[in-house]
Amino acid sequence: MKQAIDFYFDFSSPYGYLGSHKIEAIAAKHGRSVTWRPMLLGAAFKVTGAKPLSELPVKKDYFARDFVRSAKFHGVPFRLPSAFPVSTVAAARAYYWLAEKDPQKAVELAKALYKAYFVDDINISETDNVVRIAASVGCDADEVRAALDNQAVKDKTRAEVEAAIAKGVFGSPYVVVDGEPFWGVDRFDQLERWLATGGW
Amino acid sequence: MKQAIDFYFDFSSPYGYLGSHKIEAIAAKHGRSVTWRPMLLGAAFKVTGAKPLSELPVKKDYFARDFVRSAKFHGVPFRLPSAFPVSTVAAARAYYWLAEKDPQKAVELAKALYKAYFVDDINISETDNVVRIAASVGCDADEVRAALDNQAVKDKTRAEVEAAIAKGVFGSPYVVVDGEPFWGVDRFDQLERWLATGGW
Repeated sequence: MKQAIDFYFDFSSPYGYLGSHKIEAIAAKHGRSVTWRPMLLGAAFKVTGAKPLSELPVKKDYFARDFVRSAKFHGVPFRLPSAFPVSTVAAARAYYWLAEKDPQKAVELAKALYKAYFVDDINISETDNVVRIAASVGCDADEVRAALDNQAVKDKTRAEVEAAIAKGVFGSPYVVVDGEPFWGVDRFDQLERWLATGGW
Repeated sequence: MKQAIDFYFDFSSPYGYLGSHKIEAIAAKHGRSVTWRPMLLGAAFKVTGAKPLSELPVKKDYFARDFVRSAKFHGVPFRLPSAFPVSTVAAARAYYWLAEKDPQKAVELAKALYKAYFVDDINISETDNVVRIAASVGCDADEVRAALDNQAVKDKTRAEVEAAIAKGVFGSPYVVVDGEPFWGVDRFDQLERWLATGGW
């Protein structure tokens, strides 16, 4: 059986969001499954010295334009959230909590969180919003709220983020297939050919 | 008549080199010409605070791999030069000196400089090598050597680089078509669709 594709992303990353719309079709085409792995760009930036795109002189204007253009290019609905970027630690904790119980529903939650943030302009850094979004995919609101404050869930999330960084993940989206890393939704063309040919 | 495409690049940029192999076919397909505009990434980095890819922790290993993989993906011969990155001010001066006299031959020189650096592993930061490469496309060696030391040529090159930065050029390759900027050879797919559709 072929290995799953590791799909790393930050819930506040526009390119990660675009990638989330494409990764499953690409994987399915080549008989692969996808393991969704939210990470925290802020933690990775501490290692690489990078800064959020929105804070870079000159580049930030380019990226604001490129987010919108790239979304249209890929045919994905998008609007730049009013609060951008935001902390996504609550979103990541909700995901990892749910993934231990129901991996498939956790992916559904990931998609709902991305849609809330990049389509409906809901600030997913706020616990109340994460709880509401989790409830919308069938979770019990009180249970989610308790999980977000649970030390074991916090530890699990931290361990997942640290494991990602230890594997060299520094951006979003970042895909690893059979040990080969692809950074950016603009490497999905290479990812597709890699899957089709087994590398080159 | 349609506007020319502005193709900005640094002679030490692997992705600029890959772009140099693709830009003319894309332009020709859509009835456009290309204005080749060497710039100096080091000067742009002073404005954006960016650093050379080869100096970034974690990312530098990814990029070393991505250069080679991207070259194969695009079907372009490539090897990472022994000295990388290097100063490309002599190369840029030779280009701008020649462009004033013979724009077409200047493009030929640009391609020869890129090939020397990324295929034949010749250090194009060295004046002697730039002179030899210019001679190989038909320039008089003594004339080139004199030009590289000529204050007017230095001023012209500096003015071109400053004009690029003033237009927001911060990376390589960086293409501008009818005011729309595209950064990276991985935006050439969007560039192509933009040219085909007149934007979206």
